[in-house]
Amino acid sequence: MNETSTLWWDTGNQSIHYIEQTLLPNEYAIVECRSIERLATAIRRLEIRGAPALGVAGGYGVALAAVLAEKKDMQLFMAAVQRDADLLRSTRPTAINLAWGIDRVLASMQPAQDCRDACTRAIAEAKEIAREDTACCHAIGKHGAALLPDTCTVLTHCNAGALACSSWGTALGVIRSAVNEGKKVKVISCETRPLLQGARLTAWELARDGIDVTTITDSTAAHLMRQGAIDAVVVGADRITSDAVFNKIGTYMHAVCAHHHKIPFYVAAPRSTFDAKNTETDVIIEERGRDEVTIMGGRTYVPERAHVKNYAFDATPMELVTAIITETGVLRPPVDIHKLLSHHNTT
Amino acid sequence: MNETSTLWWDTGNQSIHYIEQTLLPNEYAIVECRSIERLATAIRRLEIRGAPALGVAGGYGVALAAVLAEKKDMQLFMAAVQRDADLLRSTRPTAINLAWGIDRVLASMQPAQDCRDACTRAIAEAKEIAREDTACCHAIGKHGAALLPDTCTVLTHCNAGALACSSWGTALGVIRSAVNEGKKVKVISCETRPLLQGARLTAWELARDGIDVTTITDSTAAHLMRQGAIDAVVVGADRITSDAVFNKIGTYMHAVCAHHHKIPFYVAAPRSTFDAKNTETDVIIEERGRDEVTIMGGRTYVPERAHVKNYAFDATPMELVTAIITETGVLRPPVDIHKLLSHHNTT
Repeated sequence: MNETSTLWWDTGNQSIHYIEQTLLPNEYAIVECRSIERLATAIRRLEIRGAPALGVAGGYGVALAAVLAEKKDMQLFMAAVQRDADLLRSTRPTAINLAWGIDRVLASMQPAQDCRDACTRAIAEAKEIAREDTACCHAIGKHGAALLPDTCTVLTHCNAGALACSSWGTALGVIRSAVNEGKKVKVISCETRPLLQGARLTAWELARDGIDVTTITDSTAAHLMRQGAIDAVVVGADRITSDAVFNKIGTYMHAVCAHHHKIPFYVAAPRSTFDAKNTETDVIIEERGRDEVTIMGGRTYVPERAHVKNYAFDATPMELVTAIITETGVLRPPVDIHKLLSHHNTT
Repeated sequence: MNETSTLWWDTGNQSIHYIEQTLLPNEYAIVECRSIERLATAIRRLEIRGAPALGVAGGYGVALAAVLAEKKDMQLFMAAVQRDADLLRSTRPTAINLAWGIDRVLASMQPAQDCRDACTRAIAEAKEIAREDTACCHAIGKHGAALLPDTCTVLTHCNAGALACSSWGTALGVIRSAVNEGKKVKVISCETRPLLQGARLTAWELARDGIDVTTITDSTAAHLMRQGAIDAVVVGADRITSDAVFNKIGTYMHAVCAHHHKIPFYVAAPRSTFDAKNTETDVIIEERGRDEVTIMGGRTYVPERAHVKNYAFDATPMELVTAIITETGVLRPPVDIHKLLSHHNTT
């Protein structure tokens, strides 16, 4: 299976390159980005999206800020980088990885002797995040593949794939690793309204890799579960607290329905997704604009006088999660999660 | 509240008039139909849709066939009408009301002395179906309104409204009657992928009547239930057997989630929706074309190499139904349903 990167650092041009995901599946375009404002827009517009990819983007963003900042006075330099980091951090409030990637690269600059040294350290750390992310996805894939039967149909929601990471994917990494091991895996990909990441991105990247994928509307999932057509649900996560998994809106519905049908519900996510400081009620669920729901292909489908609520994420309580697949192994709630979180908290 | 008809018989022109629902909410157009092929296309394209409205359309369709058929020989006349009736019946396999309306008007023609008499009887019977349907919706509305708290938020799926009936509506009839009685009802309307009847039709007809309506993506429903924002679910039905309610795809998911959150799940439907002859496994769930899922506003959102499954309906087992609201009263499964069905079977 080919392994394609979703975003990377161009050492020659000192710039970020990424696949512009809003154009998929109709157009495959690589964007070169050399401005923090442009990167912030790309994150806000979901040209780059997916929790692990946002961690990488946050890291590269700080590296780019370091490249761009004037390198005369260390204090002014760090203040400029910090301003850019704050701008990037504000683009998506729910995904923890974005802030995590930003903070990790900022921290790596602390021991620097001068501006150039700080810049070099930032680039190295950001690249290391990307490298670790890919390694992490492969480890998640290996642990997760062991949970899947030799022949099975897996339902997934949104895109927790190569396009959501540096490469390989978390939920789709589990599927890719299982296929690589010779398992016969078919995938049901929920289209994932309103922005159709499942229809556009998951279907695209799995079909590209020759994996059997079927797109359904989100509300068809329960019907297929009742027919016995789904053996497991595997999704990604944007943030995991000790009591809940935050992921794309619709994840909770699948968890409730999987529970009702006694189908295992797996969350595949790197440990960087864990949030030991907060519990569910502390986390703000991002609400996005009306137009994402009302306009499709340029046509308006909701009358003006109707209100619209557009939550980007929902929270799935840990009771409904069969297991969390991380790079260090499979965790079963409630005990393992608490242990990992308290460990994560102190490291 | 204004009461607008969705489809009606034009006595002067001997034709069917209907609101072309695929154009809503952007365009409000009335189509005059004087051909069986055009009517079959209208039903197939969902220009006319909704179980009770299909019953009325089936009835008017047979009346139109009688108007159009050559009136020389009674046997040839009835054979022509029967051919047209068969064509209409084949357009939508799951909704029982269509066949019910067709058969009822065909039966009304049996005692006729000659072709003209048969034609007159067909028109009268079709009009009577429409009149009864409106009366029926008001009775359903009255019985259902009594189940709603004085202040509440009701979630509905698809469009079981005035546009799905002759007028007033079944699920939305319950809401209209409650509002007319002075209850403060807010409505959450699920957009209802793939054809967006909730976004386009339910939001349009409720907003037109000044009822507070909020559109959400289908997968947001469970999230709102968990937040305690939904007091009841009210949906329509396309067919009710003793063991299951067949309705728009996504209904089952809402039923499972309502059950999980202990929220009452009501089905509002006329007794003509009951199917005493079959049980769930006998009923074919209509599968529709790929394009309904993949194309929106003229743009394609699913890559060609991905498969697509597009079920128009799903089945909700009776255990998940709190009550069925009919024109003759509120039925609580399992006992009432069986009694009604055995009664319905013999009449």
